[in-house]
Amino acid sequence: MKTFASDNYSGVHPEIMDALAKANHDHAGSYGSDDYTARAIEKFKGLFGDDIEVFFVYNGTGANVLGLSALTQSFHSILCAESAHINVDESTAPENFTGCKLVTLPSADGKITAQQVEQKIQRIDDQHHPQAKVISISQSSEYGTVYTVEEVKALSAVAKKHNLYLHMDGSRISNAAVSLNKSFREFTKDAGVDVLSFGGTKNGLMFGEAIVFFQPELAKNFKFIRKQGMQLNSKMRFISAQFEALLSNDLWKRNATHTNHLAQLLDKGLRQIPQVKVTQKAEGNGVFVIMPPQIIPLLQNEFPFYSWNDQLSEVRLMCSWDTKEEEVVKFIAKVKELVAK
Amino acid sequence: MKTFASDNYSGVHPEIMDALAKANHDHAGSYGSDDYTARAIEKFKGLFGDDIEVFFVYNGTGANVLGLSALTQSFHSILCAESAHINVDESTAPENFTGCKLVTLPSADGKITAQQVEQKIQRIDDQHHPQAKVISISQSSEYGTVYTVEEVKALSAVAKKHNLYLHMDGSRISNAAVSLNKSFREFTKDAGVDVLSFGGTKNGLMFGEAIVFFQPELAKNFKFIRKQGMQLNSKMRFISAQFEALLSNDLWKRNATHTNHLAQLLDKGLRQIPQVKVTQKAEGNGVFVIMPPQIIPLLQNEFPFYSWNDQLSEVRLMCSWDTKEEEVVKFIAKVKELVAK
Amino acid sequence: MKTFASDNYSGVHPEIMDALAKANHDHAGSYGSDDYTARAIEKFKGLFGDDIEVFFVYNGTGANVLGLSALTQSFHSILCAESAHINVDESTAPENFTGCKLVTLPSADGKITAQQVEQKIQRIDDQHHPQAKVISISQSSEYGTVYTVEEVKALSAVAKKHNLYLHMDGSRISNAAVSLNKSFREFTKDAGVDVLSFGGTKNGLMFGEAIVFFQPELAKNFKFIRKQGMQLNSKMRFISAQFEALLSNDLWKRNATHTNHLAQLLDKGLRQIPQVKVTQKAEGNGVFVIMPPQIIPLLQNEFPFYSWNDQLSEVRLMCSWDTKEEEVVKFIAKVKELVAK
Amino acid sequence: MKTFASDNYSGVHPEIMDALAKANHDHAGSYGSDDYTARAIEKFKGLFGDDIEVFFVYNGTGANVLGLSALTQSFHSILCAESAHINVDESTAPENFTGCKLVTLPSADGKITAQQVEQKIQRIDDQHHPQAKVISISQSSEYGTVYTVEEVKALSAVAKKHNLYLHMDGSRISNAAVSLNKSFREFTKDAGVDVLSFGGTKNGLMFGEAIVFFQPELAKNFKFIRKQGMQLNSKMRFISAQFEALLSNDLWKRNATHTNHLAQLLDKGLRQIPQVKVTQKAEGNGVFVIMPPQIIPLLQNEFPFYSWNDQLSEVRLMCSWDTKEEEVVKFIAKVKELVAK
Repeated sequence: MKTFASDNYSGVHPEIMDALAKANHDHAGSYGSDDYTARAIEKFKGLFGDDIEVFFVYNGTGANVLGLSALTQSFHSILCAESAHINVDESTAPENFTGCKLVTLPSADGKITAQQVEQKIQRIDDQHHPQAKVISISQSSEYGTVYTVEEVKALSAVAKKHNLYLHMDGSRISNAAVSLNKSFREFTKDAGVDVLSFGGTKNGLMFGEAIVFFQPELAKNFKFIRKQGMQLNSKMRFISAQFEALLSNDLWKRNATHTNHLAQLLDKGLRQIPQVKVTQKAEGNGVFVIMPPQIIPLLQNEFPFYSWNDQLSEVRLMCSWDTKEEEVVKFIAKVKELVAK
Repeated sequence: MKTFASDNYSGVHPEIMDALAKANHDHAGSYGSDDYTARAIEKFKGLFGDDIEVFFVYNGTGANVLGLSALTQSFHSILCAESAHINVDESTAPENFTGCKLVTLPSADGKITAQQVEQKIQRIDDQHHPQAKVISISQSSEYGTVYTVEEVKALSAVAKKHNLYLHMDGSRISNAAVSLNKSFREFTKDAGVDVLSFGGTKNGLMFGEAIVFFQPELAKNFKFIRKQGMQLNSKMRFISAQFEALLSNDLWKRNATHTNHLAQLLDKGLRQIPQVKVTQKAEGNGVFVIMPPQIIPLLQNEFPFYSWNDQLSEVRLMCSWDTKEEEVVKFIAKVKELVAK
Repeated sequence: MKTFASDNYSGVHPEIMDALAKANHDHAGSYGSDDYTARAIEKFKGLFGDDIEVFFVYNGTGANVLGLSALTQSFHSILCAESAHINVDESTAPENFTGCKLVTLPSADGKITAQQVEQKIQRIDDQHHPQAKVISISQSSEYGTVYTVEEVKALSAVAKKHNLYLHMDGSRISNAAVSLNKSFREFTKDAGVDVLSFGGTKNGLMFGEAIVFFQPELAKNFKFIRKQGMQLNSKMRFISAQFEALLSNDLWKRNATHTNHLAQLLDKGLRQIPQVKVTQKAEGNGVFVIMPPQIIPLLQNEFPFYSWNDQLSEVRLMCSWDTKEEEVVKFIAKVKELVAK
Repeated sequence: MKTFASDNYSGVHPEIMDALAKANHDHAGSYGSDDYTARAIEKFKGLFGDDIEVFFVYNGTGANVLGLSALTQSFHSILCAESAHINVDESTAPENFTGCKLVTLPSADGKITAQQVEQKIQRIDDQHHPQAKVISISQSSEYGTVYTVEEVKALSAVAKKHNLYLHMDGSRISNAAVSLNKSFREFTKDAGVDVLSFGGTKNGLMFGEAIVFFQPELAKNFKFIRKQGMQLNSKMRFISAQFEALLSNDLWKRNATHTNHLAQLLDKGLRQIPQVKVTQKAEGNGVFVIMPPQIIPLLQNEFPFYSWNDQLSEVRLMCSWDTKEEEVVKFIAKVKELVAK
């Protein structure tokens, strides 16, 4: 069975499995005091420069929530798109762990603008009102769209102007990098991002995400926050070794290039079918499509995927590192066949 | 390098690696909607009966804290040994996530008694005072000692008498089962335990712990608690497959039998050296020893291990599934050599 | 100095001061075990029937947040108007103390509709998504508008249909009762409200609010929640005696009738001035007006009041129990004079 | 009815009632932007110097918990006596609001020593362990004993040595000042206290406590913490005016001198009765006595007071500003009469 359900339906890339097997010999210091972790951190410094701090955690919710925790006190608020993962798909973990309010901005494409944010930064220094402290964006977004470097910089400028931080949920950051054809650094650190969740699981890892601090002083208490947040892995080498492999031989890029390419094939193929409507730019590895409702279950039987918006009859198609071009071709053919009936 | 540092310094058992490799093909439903998870849960039902609920999480802190969360409201207190992992080694995760106070009981051997607990259940229904709701014990304890079935039952009787729950931190539960020569069920469910953290990582897994609810209604909101607690693994099959393997072909028992045996060898050997003093019964896979302070760093150079109590010059020696008998023999010989100087 | 700033700028009604003085003799049991508290609770039972539970707290934020706490677990969400006091004027107390997310609904008049709420109750039983559990409305609203009995019932019907609770922030509930010309009971308990914050401070008390539970079982742990929430007053008789007085001789009604009347005078007077625009129905004791920006500071010099929306040049005028009709007359005259310049 | 139950059974001192009445005219800015608050703060500056920050809150739990909040992050621990009010009488408010663990020290007289504290500051910088950040002491203590200036300085020295803060719960601080015959400043700010809960309610106020920060930068976010903590009073003048009166004409001192004097009378009288045993030094306004169990209910019928330790048959006798010397005389006579039977 192959699916277009989610990039966490796929398994682990062979090079990652290999790295896990290689890391599995002998004793190693626990909780990160091991060579694999040191080397994985070096890989990140190779991408972003030496003046960063990197921490590994289990999952995306952990990465986002703990990264936001490092930036906030409990009377703060965090501005994000209404569709942000932290707002709709992480239960109340953000509120519960940070104590902060999430202030949401409407967005048709999953992205928020500097202008929108600026208007929502209100009642500064008013004790009665949650104090805006972080702008959080997803790159690529939950709608598969990608912020340009300029858009990130504009958000960072608003953040700096009002003494806020800019946080990036990069659970699919590799797809964004490939889409932009930029180095990670250009649209994160160099564009003014302060803290980044760097995704691994959705790009071929078994488990594991990284949190990258671009201002080391922001990380000064982070080891305590991670432990308290129940995200400190004891046999840490088995996350670190995966990241070392992901950042070696451009594995991250090969995987993301593949999935972005497939998403574009889907996009292109589906746009040629008049009965369906692609609703977003396919800039990452996901494609959003409005389809005739009656064909959705028939398609799902053969190629499982998720409904995105039942009322609109909009679905989400997500490609993984192990999705094959022929599956995309078959899928498009099946859609054509079904709409023709 | 082999060490007596911790059972999380060792790697992953080959049968577990095998299970991970076998689980790594094709797409599988995420977040637990996969066959591996169904099968792993069946394995647990084989151990404990059908009327249980099982959830997998990332690590021991997650298992303990979320299990306790399911049993408490934020105005409650949790009674435990002063040396309990939840009290001294999980940062403030228990307080932070449950809101509860931990009320600690002194213990020389890591175990608490029904009588001690009974005396601390005070000021029931007094709104000013944290309301006792859970007794939490570690099996085996942080000192390598093991509660007998009768001791667990006595604690359960106190719990029931006062409308409290009995929680067991079983991060090393397999060692306890082997030590007691009892089935898991006899000293947990059948002895009155309500919620159990069933350890995997310290017994040969890469990562992953299970939470077992012996009263299914206690688990009714647990899926939300786990997600909110940032402990929901997306590619769940890779925890489940490990547990399926651990509970197949008695792997859990082979590993624990091996480590317990080595601990007894250490215990026996060290007790013959008059200059050192074994301070606890070696009922699990750890041995606690007071040594002449000057030999500790010399020993650690060759066989890394942790100091337990600097003031007493007491150290902890922990055996892992991959520790070899010859290493134990060498270690004892080295101690003899050093104390003789 | 008299102002139209806020109903908490005014002092304490003489009958309340009297009650405080009379309560001040002899010793009395602390924390509510006193006769004043028993009598105040009887007064509430007189209003709502015997099958209620009543608790006194210090302030409106305490009343709202703790009442919501009694209805929720930390993975829940609370639906409210974007302009709700709990959303914009209680810092992050609601998130921090309940752990819940506030899901906000846009509203031009401070009221939300059953239909709006129904559309936002989404992804029930989906572990990834905050689970809707409470609808919270303000009566009268932050815009001085009042829900009809039918509107409350419609919201209650949606709540019941989806197994949610209906919470009412009644910090100005007396104004609503007078405006509706209904008993408290008709638009709260009988209309399906589950928990009510019954306001005192804004209607002439020195301090103190009541939380009324219309389903007693919802209050079963509330004494612990109140203490933990730091809202348990030790010399409780001094809140209770105020409430006893407020609910005696229709003091609540006399005060609210007076302030509503003044608000209507303001409304009527200002609506006759073409250069200003009253933006909301003056159903309570507040009036919202768009004014020429240049006259605002001149007016504020003489009659302090708050700007509501700087961009719209909209201000809020709030009447208190001690506001005098002649002050309203003078105010309107001053507006006329200033717009004429 | 007069009692020896608690200093919160008594009412409000006439000079405080007077101040409340005087404050009750005209409108005043809410939330502390009023002249009463400014004058009350000046009174505090008169006691402690200008370089302080003062905030008013509702009650003692609020004062303690929010003061501790200002000093901690959620991965910290707070060291205190096992008998501390924050540990046994504030539900789980401290854990819930700060997220911190309370690490308790045994104490026979309610006081902890610098040496005890020093031994409990463990595992600094170890991510697994709650990080000690605050020493909290009660002055006078829950056992009516008082720290000398030297004892406070010794605790402060330990705090400074390890980068901790020293917090003082001064709900009965006036009694301590009278007992020590020192200015407030000598045993707080000048002795190294960082944050002080300055009690009002137990010394004749209707309600209200103050939090005094001796390092102003520690208070920089405190207005947000107070609001979020639901302890911001809207008609603030009615707390401030009470404090202004308490700190005028030595009212605080007259009240505390009176209650301390009565406690000493009790102490002296009871020590002459061989059948009872005074267990603590009566340095404040409370006296602790072991009595023949059969006389306790007979005494309580006439003079209500609380049992302190049922097992020991130890009771607590607490004097209030309105307790009369003749009541103490009668009480002692009654004890003599009852033990003689």
